[in-house]
Amino acid sequence: MNQTDVLVVGGSAAGIVAAATAKSFHPDKRVMLVRREKQVLVPCGIPYMFGTLENSDKNVIPDANLENAGVELVVSEVDAFDPEQQICTFSDGSQIGFEKLVLATGSVPIKPGWLNGLDFDNVFIVPKSKRYLDSQMSTLAGCRKVVVIGGGFIGVELADEIAANGRQVSIVELQPHVLSLAFDDELCTRAEKVLTRRGVELKCGQRVVRIEGSDRADGVKLDSGEVIDADAVILSVGYRPNSDLARQAGLKCNEMGFIKVNEYMRTEYKNIFAVGDCAEKFSFITRTLKGTMLASTSGAEARIAGMNLYQLSTVRTFQGTISIFCTAIGQNAFGAAGVTEKLAAERGFAIVTGLFEGVDSHPATLPDARPQLVKLIASMDSGTLLGGEVAGGKSAGELTNLIGFLIQNRMTVDGILTSQIGTHPLLTASPTAYPLIKAAEAIAKKRKTVLA
Amino acid sequence: MNQTDVLVVGGSAAGIVAAATAKSFHPDKRVMLVRREKQVLVPCGIPYMFGTLENSDKNVIPDANLENAGVELVVSEVDAFDPEQQICTFSDGSQIGFEKLVLATGSVPIKPGWLNGLDFDNVFIVPKSKRYLDSQMSTLAGCRKVVVIGGGFIGVELADEIAANGRQVSIVELQPHVLSLAFDDELCTRAEKVLTRRGVELKCGQRVVRIEGSDRADGVKLDSGEVIDADAVILSVGYRPNSDLARQAGLKCNEMGFIKVNEYMRTEYKNIFAVGDCAEKFSFITRTLKGTMLASTSGAEARIAGMNLYQLSTVRTFQGTISIFCTAIGQNAFGAAGVTEKLAAERGFAIVTGLFEGVDSHPATLPDARPQLVKLIASMDSGTLLGGEVAGGKSAGELTNLIGFLIQNRMTVDGILTSQIGTHPLLTASPTAYPLIKAAEAIAKKRKTVLA
Repeated sequence: MNQTDVLVVGGSAAGIVAAATAKSFHPDKRVMLVRREKQVLVPCGIPYMFGTLENSDKNVIPDANLENAGVELVVSEVDAFDPEQQICTFSDGSQIGFEKLVLATGSVPIKPGWLNGLDFDNVFIVPKSKRYLDSQMSTLAGCRKVVVIGGGFIGVELADEIAANGRQVSIVELQPHVLSLAFDDELCTRAEKVLTRRGVELKCGQRVVRIEGSDRADGVKLDSGEVIDADAVILSVGYRPNSDLARQAGLKCNEMGFIKVNEYMRTEYKNIFAVGDCAEKFSFITRTLKGTMLASTSGAEARIAGMNLYQLSTVRTFQGTISIFCTAIGQNAFGAAGVTEKLAAERGFAIVTGLFEGVDSHPATLPDARPQLVKLIASMDSGTLLGGEVAGGKSAGELTNLIGFLIQNRMTVDGILTSQIGTHPLLTASPTAYPLIKAAEAIAKKRKTVLA
Repeated sequence: MNQTDVLVVGGSAAGIVAAATAKSFHPDKRVMLVRREKQVLVPCGIPYMFGTLENSDKNVIPDANLENAGVELVVSEVDAFDPEQQICTFSDGSQIGFEKLVLATGSVPIKPGWLNGLDFDNVFIVPKSKRYLDSQMSTLAGCRKVVVIGGGFIGVELADEIAANGRQVSIVELQPHVLSLAFDDELCTRAEKVLTRRGVELKCGQRVVRIEGSDRADGVKLDSGEVIDADAVILSVGYRPNSDLARQAGLKCNEMGFIKVNEYMRTEYKNIFAVGDCAEKFSFITRTLKGTMLASTSGAEARIAGMNLYQLSTVRTFQGTISIFCTAIGQNAFGAAGVTEKLAAERGFAIVTGLFEGVDSHPATLPDARPQLVKLIASMDSGTLLGGEVAGGKSAGELTNLIGFLIQNRMTVDGILTSQIGTHPLLTASPTAYPLIKAAEAIAKKRKTVLA
């Protein structure tokens, strides 16, 4: 029987990062990554294959990354593993022994049981499979009217990319706003304005009742009675953790279906770790279980597992997800980290918020200057930053990451106000009206009044 | 005699921020800002008036900011102030009493005493005066050959903007590289390549001996004997703190000419504060005196003074400058925070560095993808981040600010590696090759080897 030191199951972002980190920190160990797919797609690039990137070939993660890192790649399906014997069995019957196992089996699109038509030729989900998506794109090429069910960020990005190709696209979203899990209403409505301007029709606060048609969808019926014509339907209503393999091996999963792990990303088995969409996570802020599936969280978990495989380090632990992410609709970027005002209030935090809208370069007379809005959410008692949201031009992505670090460092608004921010006419807001600082100032003023 | 609660002297970034913060945190106080200039220019926008912005009118800080903040604006010259009596005298002889005084008198361009020709009609410095710069721009309009003496960021930005208008522009820099105070050589040479490609001629490691011509400059002579033809010369060799007013009032200045202040930005007089280019500062990392003149530092100092005027707060203090700044040459941005490798070694730190070059969007096949390089400098003993440098597209500005917060939070490479970073195809590098993380990983690996 073949034997490896480290076996990583799963070839998407979490698996790649876990394997590369394992090899980087343990160069003497044999690190093997096994995955099902011949070619792996950049997950967050998937919506952009439908427009900007033009095809899926441009969205393949190069295997050279793994090769250069010294990770062995095996394309095969894992049928089962024995956590006690530390043996993994492939679908062709072959086996491999492992010293350490990292499960990075990801997630699969949810197919709601109550909805008909999921087997229709022109009704699609959004899995990470190149073959499936290639076929989906070729069908879509002949479609004029597309309905996207679900206005989370994947639904929104997909809809916008498809609409850019001159199609009539509608998003149906159950919540009152698109992107409402990620952002507070001020930002959702901005995103909605951009989408509408770019030709995407929004049907928010509406429930899909059924997909019309007999063996091909020709419309989507809403609970209002309205039927939206469609010659293709895309379902983007979330993902569930792909923890079947782990569960079959007897590993514990939580009530949301995620593989249970501790802060070292270790399962109940000392030599078995789980990372990414399949691994249990809790919130950095609220400390409750979360269903977050984001590369930001996966990446940190994967690095932490990779570093802790052979020796635990108390300074290399996962402290909970801040659900940090960013998205773009054309030149308009939106990002969020930590909790929204909505969620913080719901969980019972006494909070105070600050919001400032400025421009992302200065003076505002510069040709590329775009509005930039920052909203911060802090705790009333300590002034600690609990969340932040950004809308702006493309720099909003890294600005969101900056806010992520403020949260992860548990900075207070005082800490922010006394910090130094570099500014430049072409690159950032001005030193006198940097939205992050002005939002923090608004919070400090409110706290001063309340605490006085 | 007129009386105000808070008097701020100086109308550039530091003065504006100090006054606005003072009013924001002490809404019941009368806050007055006195400045010499009718119109104040965005300081870091000055180089861009010479090209991108087309004229100085587009680079004026709107006074509406002060009005909206509730700050009274007085355009006048301050002749003197009495720190004991707390009275300020204007050049027209009128006086005003103050409860608190904030000196934000800025800096003035250095005119080297050994250099001839400074009185020539076509030899310029770069002050923050709209009138002076308007006249300079009108002279430059008729010039074909311009020599910029000094390759710091103002010299570089100016040269690039002037060259973009079809002129032949040379930079003469004494150091082996342009921008060498801000960046390590890897980044300097990248900036040099960009400048050269954009048509700026570089003369590095060369000393200016004299300006040729009798009452108009017609060339610049170098110590190599070479004479560069010029029909205009711009001198950008640094600034000195404008602390004359303070010194005349008997306030202590340090050996570099800066007004002495403590961590609350307070001078030796309880009711007198100094902020910005005129105020003493020391390094956050090396703890030695610094001559830093950047809006990033000024802004933090001004906020801190504004908040501490009437009541000191131990959590609102200035912890030393991280000299954070960013610049752009066309679409190429460069940023730095903390110490360079060069400076850290010079000061005696045992350091370890990590460098990674990737792309600033992903997959790299995206139309706007640009190279992105991150270099990190950490202490060998603790892994604490001491400095960072970024070269990339426009997102490099906020990425530099992100690094600034890592440094100001005294994060270690372990802290960085376990952190969550949001990524998006159009906005950031990929989750598997985010240059900041990969640079941190390189440092962690080196430390592991050394400490093993």
